[in-house]
Amino acid sequence: MQENQLQDLLKKMTIDEKVGQLLQLAMPFFEGASHRGHITGPMNEMGLTEEDVRNTGSVLGGSGAREVKNIQDAHLKNNRLGIPLLMMADIIHGFKTIFPIPLAIGSSWDLDLAQKSAEVAAKEAAVSGVHVTFAPMVDLVRDPRWGRVMESTGEDPYLNSEYARAFVRGFQGKNLKEDVNHVAACVKHFAAYGAPEGGRDYNTVNMSERQLRESYLPAYKAALDEGCEMVMTAFNTVDGIPATGNEFLMRDILRDEWGFDGVMISDWGAVKELIPHGVAEDTREAALKALRAGVDIEMMTECYINNVKDLIESGELDVALLDEAVLRILTLKDKLGLFENPYRGADEQLEQEVILSEPHRKVARELAAKSCVLLKNEQVLPLSTDTKVALIGPFANSGNILGAWSWHGQPEDAVTIQQGIEQKIDPSLLSVAKGCDIEAYNGEDIQEALEVAKDAELIVLALGESPGMSGEAASLADIRLPEAQLTLIKEMKKLNKKIAIVLFNGRPIDLHGVIDEADALLEAWFPGTEGGAAIADILYGDVNPSGKLTMSFPHSVGQVPVYYNHFNTGRPNLNNGEGYVTKYLDIPNEPLLPFGYGLSYTTFEYSNHALSGDVLTVNDSITASVQVTNTGEVAGEEIVQLYIRDVAGEVVRPMKELKGYEKITLQPGETKTVTFTITEEQLRYYHSNLEFTSDAGRFEVFIGTNSRDVETLSFVLKK
Amino acid sequence: MQENQLQDLLKKMTIDEKVGQLLQLAMPFFEGASHRGHITGPMNEMGLTEEDVRNTGSVLGGSGAREVKNIQDAHLKNNRLGIPLLMMADIIHGFKTIFPIPLAIGSSWDLDLAQKSAEVAAKEAAVSGVHVTFAPMVDLVRDPRWGRVMESTGEDPYLNSEYARAFVRGFQGKNLKEDVNHVAACVKHFAAYGAPEGGRDYNTVNMSERQLRESYLPAYKAALDEGCEMVMTAFNTVDGIPATGNEFLMRDILRDEWGFDGVMISDWGAVKELIPHGVAEDTREAALKALRAGVDIEMMTECYINNVKDLIESGELDVALLDEAVLRILTLKDKLGLFENPYRGADEQLEQEVILSEPHRKVARELAAKSCVLLKNEQVLPLSTDTKVALIGPFANSGNILGAWSWHGQPEDAVTIQQGIEQKIDPSLLSVAKGCDIEAYNGEDIQEALEVAKDAELIVLALGESPGMSGEAASLADIRLPEAQLTLIKEMKKLNKKIAIVLFNGRPIDLHGVIDEADALLEAWFPGTEGGAAIADILYGDVNPSGKLTMSFPHSVGQVPVYYNHFNTGRPNLNNGEGYVTKYLDIPNEPLLPFGYGLSYTTFEYSNHALSGDVLTVNDSITASVQVTNTGEVAGEEIVQLYIRDVAGEVVRPMKELKGYEKITLQPGETKTVTFTITEEQLRYYHSNLEFTSDAGRFEVFIGTNSRDVETLSFVLKK
Repeated sequence: MQENQLQDLLKKMTIDEKVGQLLQLAMPFFEGASHRGHITGPMNEMGLTEEDVRNTGSVLGGSGAREVKNIQDAHLKNNRLGIPLLMMADIIHGFKTIFPIPLAIGSSWDLDLAQKSAEVAAKEAAVSGVHVTFAPMVDLVRDPRWGRVMESTGEDPYLNSEYARAFVRGFQGKNLKEDVNHVAACVKHFAAYGAPEGGRDYNTVNMSERQLRESYLPAYKAALDEGCEMVMTAFNTVDGIPATGNEFLMRDILRDEWGFDGVMISDWGAVKELIPHGVAEDTREAALKALRAGVDIEMMTECYINNVKDLIESGELDVALLDEAVLRILTLKDKLGLFENPYRGADEQLEQEVILSEPHRKVARELAAKSCVLLKNEQVLPLSTDTKVALIGPFANSGNILGAWSWHGQPEDAVTIQQGIEQKIDPSLLSVAKGCDIEAYNGEDIQEALEVAKDAELIVLALGESPGMSGEAASLADIRLPEAQLTLIKEMKKLNKKIAIVLFNGRPIDLHGVIDEADALLEAWFPGTEGGAAIADILYGDVNPSGKLTMSFPHSVGQVPVYYNHFNTGRPNLNNGEGYVTKYLDIPNEPLLPFGYGLSYTTFEYSNHALSGDVLTVNDSITASVQVTNTGEVAGEEIVQLYIRDVAGEVVRPMKELKGYEKITLQPGETKTVTFTITEEQLRYYHSNLEFTSDAGRFEVFIGTNSRDVETLSFVLKK
Repeated sequence: MQENQLQDLLKKMTIDEKVGQLLQLAMPFFEGASHRGHITGPMNEMGLTEEDVRNTGSVLGGSGAREVKNIQDAHLKNNRLGIPLLMMADIIHGFKTIFPIPLAIGSSWDLDLAQKSAEVAAKEAAVSGVHVTFAPMVDLVRDPRWGRVMESTGEDPYLNSEYARAFVRGFQGKNLKEDVNHVAACVKHFAAYGAPEGGRDYNTVNMSERQLRESYLPAYKAALDEGCEMVMTAFNTVDGIPATGNEFLMRDILRDEWGFDGVMISDWGAVKELIPHGVAEDTREAALKALRAGVDIEMMTECYINNVKDLIESGELDVALLDEAVLRILTLKDKLGLFENPYRGADEQLEQEVILSEPHRKVARELAAKSCVLLKNEQVLPLSTDTKVALIGPFANSGNILGAWSWHGQPEDAVTIQQGIEQKIDPSLLSVAKGCDIEAYNGEDIQEALEVAKDAELIVLALGESPGMSGEAASLADIRLPEAQLTLIKEMKKLNKKIAIVLFNGRPIDLHGVIDEADALLEAWFPGTEGGAAIADILYGDVNPSGKLTMSFPHSVGQVPVYYNHFNTGRPNLNNGEGYVTKYLDIPNEPLLPFGYGLSYTTFEYSNHALSGDVLTVNDSITASVQVTNTGEVAGEEIVQLYIRDVAGEVVRPMKELKGYEKITLQPGETKTVTFTITEEQLRYYHSNLEFTSDAGRFEVFIGTNSRDVETLSFVLKK
């Protein structure tokens, strides 16, 4: 459609029809849905009429080609103007072919594969009738207690921004109208959802505007710069105002400053939640605040549908606000080609062919392997295929390795670690036992595990959190492994055999009782459908691990938040025994494992760190370079990292900020030179007056294999 | 002196002499000090000349009548214009007669006694030659990891403000010139020092300006409203700018908005710390930033003395800034009467008479008893004087109960808990053993304790943190009692006797392994010089405990920060099993013990909660009232608490805010009616535009015995 046609359509709409476009309901509300049985109750509760449903603009959780078509068919018949429904769903890290959780994908530092995973997810979702996915989630997180940390790529604004772009490219492709194998993306959660106080989900968020802009906003902006069509609000407050009723965030920054003209949707129920938040007395005030602030679509609650008409008629709300919201929604429908092709990609035949296809599984396997992070290896890994292995633990033969936010994924479709290993070695060399449950143990199971392991040459312990222990509303105050599994480790240690531990989890955990006890430790996160195969690839050396942490692993929960890009304080702890310095009496200031950390089966030597000059001017650039040599005996990939520090700023500046990285492959003995270009633009930051500029002065440049182990160079910026 | 005389004096001063007034050095730098031996090194390091020392304006740690007089004598001879030195010292919770730590004083909710403690401290300090104390510390704290929590009165802005005023009244008296038994107060640490990230001392502080004004600034302001003469900067950054170089805090808020015209001093070394903070390249830039921002006195570093003259001569710094700083310092000296009476209160004779005198000890004993909080009591306390008691634990006979920030206090002067009990019962009824050290144990000590306790009818365990485990630079990541003492508890439990635990500690701790194991639990904090006597008063019922916590005791460190005046979120946990609500999977949202909590040996019944009306208008007031009856068998004091909630604000409002309290004494069977006046003024808060106003609408009123156990009433504010 042309814009004037959309405008014409808008003109034909009644206020009720317009307000209907702003409502999003779950599938069961709609005629043609397969589970319509229990909808009368919710409809009554929400005060919805059949007419309201007929006017509704979009569907939550709309997927399944057959059902989506049925719903769209019925809707087009019932809707006076024949405006098609938008089908939206949470496709976070795969549709049915489940990829590693985003925190794991983060560890790959592989934007191409990340993009490819989004492409695959989009394709499977699109053929299943989905138009929009509620992804990517790009919330910056510094607190591993927060359960939804699994859905983020980590603690770094730069890296999160890069992933935001990659995911948007992957989901959306180049042309949503023509390419029905892609879906519109919806970046979330605007803003700063990843900083809830106490790591408790939905909890209050408070920080200065400067910090918000400096650390938390860049990734949302990056997604929009990449053309992301939608934005979802956050559940939290930002400086006292719920994000879903926040004019400053949505009007001032998102629309006016960034020029975003796409659709803004509330998170589930978040408009009505303005009431418990305590900024609205009733649904009417909630509707007024949310629409004024700029929320176009209200997900799953009735504030708009029951109040907007009246608010307009009473003169409290300008109809122009309603019209612009509706026009944005119609425009998105048009961009997706729904007016011409209301089924869009939905195709039962393709569903059969595409979903969980071998090519898709192949991408999942590759990404899962690249997402694993080798945290420790005392000459244990890789395993030889003739080693007699005991595989022990609650994850030994579990398909529950998809992680949270994988609604359509089936554990039965997942390759377990046992199955993965069975593809590598003679069955006679593998013995398996559960050892304990994730959160409970008994003597019998442990006895069996000891029995099973006693003749093995090496024990692989497959341990971790249940998928429900991370994700939404799944915060933890204690981030150690459950006691049952710590006990299992202790018991297995009694056999005096080498132990390799593989961890399945959705957050950085406190590794006490794990890392010191293990001879090798592989962080596999929740690796998705091909997890077991990918892990076996690594355990047996078919893939050399290359992942690096994108979130610090704290020493203990009492150290939280701990992150690499912190400030120096006025009394840095130089660990020289001085008394009045910033420290804990009982633990170090440093995390147990730093940002950027990860081992390989080979070793890399960094040499000849150099800058092309020691003075940078505004329109020029300088080059930082380093030679990296594979000094081991197998080929390997290394993620070479560049950090910069502004030694004296107008406000305090992080000790290190990631400004670039390169992933290189080196054959044994091979050397490559990695170069990074440094320009003045990279040195800008938000000053106290919120100006985004750089300061003349000295800068330090750090190059290394992780954020801790670096060589330091320096230059001066002249302006 | 008259102001014009001070101006005249200023005019006579050279720039060097002026800059000298801005310098504060420790006692050993000065002629006449008893420990001058090692001063050459520090002087060289700082680049100080003898001339610089002769020009110096004030002395850090200046106390001891004889020595102070000697120093002043020498100084007046050497200083060209005969400007006397200011003697400043950290007199935090007592000089030699040590009172409970401020966190404990907070628990008394007794402003009169708090004031009296400051009067006593001031008197002992004044006769010892001190002119200014670096107190009160009024930093609001929500994180028990922070070691300096012991120096604060807690987590509530209202209560902290009340204490700020009480301490200032106590320290300063009514007229510093005439009443040489008082000292000038210096409120600290401006601003928000109590909110370091991760609870790690000196760490970065970030929050919105609105939150800063709402929660953190009121107590500093209250101290100044009470006439506090000085303000000390904080070590931390506030939104990226170190407090000690923060023009917004010191010029805009403190001077311009609040009209503070007293002396601003840096914390120890904080001017020079602008360099490691990363906002100054060198001491010159540090001096420029600090003086511009408004720091008058630089404590213990050389940025001003080595650079200010040059900065003025180069035109970078306006001499007016120097002059106004010097004038403020001269004015303070004059207010203290130093030009007429440079020794002021210093008096060797009075030192002997006054310090640790019986009247002083009596105040300390009373306040220590009022500061104790009874956390649990299963019909164990009070003890009968004919009960056979085993007193076990590292604090059983330790005078190390003064707590941090008690430089002049001597453990030898303290009454231990053993000594306290010995004043109550026949020696034959008491047996004592250490059981373990604070952080270590061995089988022998535990065996001895078991032996000692086996014939007792009841065990009193005296446990806790060492004084060094809280205070400056003494943050902890693990806030449980040390493992040794948890083990001791477990071992003593095996005797199957009633156990009363008395805790000595400087922060809210995780009580797992303590509270469930105890039949009675008394939080004694660090109770000061008369601690053991006061605790015995409580154990034997001579004093009925009445203290109430002013900081929440978290369930575990993974719950931090947890505080009573939090927000509701959009998805409050109603504990009805609903899934997507704000929660931890493994612990409750609520702290283990709430703000305002504390038990008594008697019981109080609250009845007839009432409001005088259900509508409040701006120029009117309404009254909240409740009847409280002592339903037990002994007289007791109860702290009746009033909280208010704004149900729907322009920004989210706390679930409860303390707005008043009354401490009443009730005989058995007696009933009193407590009334609180509620006015519109109490309902004001900082809106998103930083306006401090109230909103029309519904308010809830809570009256109860602590912040959790309340009855709810409500009214409407009409505007």
